[in-house]
Amino acid sequence: MDTIPILKLGDFLLISIQIDMHDRLALQLQDELTAMVVKTKARGVLIDISSVETVDSFMGRMLSNIASMTQLLGAETVVAGIRPAVAITIVELGLTLPNVRTALNVNSGMEMLRQLMEISDQGDDRERHQE
Amino acid sequence: MDTIPILKLGDFLLISIQIDMHDRLALQLQDELTAMVVKTKARGVLIDISSVETVDSFMGRMLSNIASMTQLLGAETVVAGIRPAVAITIVELGLTLPNVRTALNVNSGMEMLRQLMEISDQGDDRERHQE
Repeated sequence: MDTIPILKLGDFLLISIQIDMHDRLALQLQDELTAMVVKTKARGVLIDISSVETVDSFMGRMLSNIASMTQLLGAETVVAGIRPAVAITIVELGLTLPNVRTALNVNSGMEMLRQLMEISDQGDDRERHQE
Repeated sequence: MDTIPILKLGDFLLISIQIDMHDRLALQLQDELTAMVVKTKARGVLIDISSVETVDSFMGRMLSNIASMTQLLGAETVVAGIRPAVAITIVELGLTLPNVRTALNVNSGMEMLRQLMEISDQGDDRERHQE
């Protein structure tokens, strides 16, 4: 069962990472997720890592890459559920997560995505008025 | 990382099963889920099994038990994402899933839970009127 399901929830996609990431799985996730964003016209991606006990530079890079890729496809990415111990490791290792927004849990991550959508919708309206 | 995260999404709890179930893990999930339903006052539980490739009588019983337990705590359970091959196995093995409602995917499962909530809210209103 070495696949990570991508769940569609309204305008958003939800991914819950529960297994250790390795190269092949990370690439597979990137492929499937980008295809799914295009197919479902998703506007936000929420990645729950509350089951993840260790984040290393590989995992950090994967999250950043996913965020950058989905941004190119017009969807925002929020990473939710970082454990306190994981937060400490990330800072102590000097890892950075460029382009990644974070939230305490899935519930607040969903709220964050909704707010980002509203802001971008307002921006679109303004641009349309200026045209 | 042998835990199954229980994600809170508004009034509902979402569980995505991605690893093979064994006795200890099933018991742990039952304990954590019932505690979480009480703690968060959740009104619905959505279990995604789209990553599950085989359902045996153990898994079937676990799903039924969870549904019965959460019902006692006032929450409905919907199982979403049964693969076609899994549906065939369930019927061919003669397994029954008492108390379990099923939906095609997480999105429609969420919709089903929302409708169940509305019906139960209307029931509550009617009871209150009759008092």
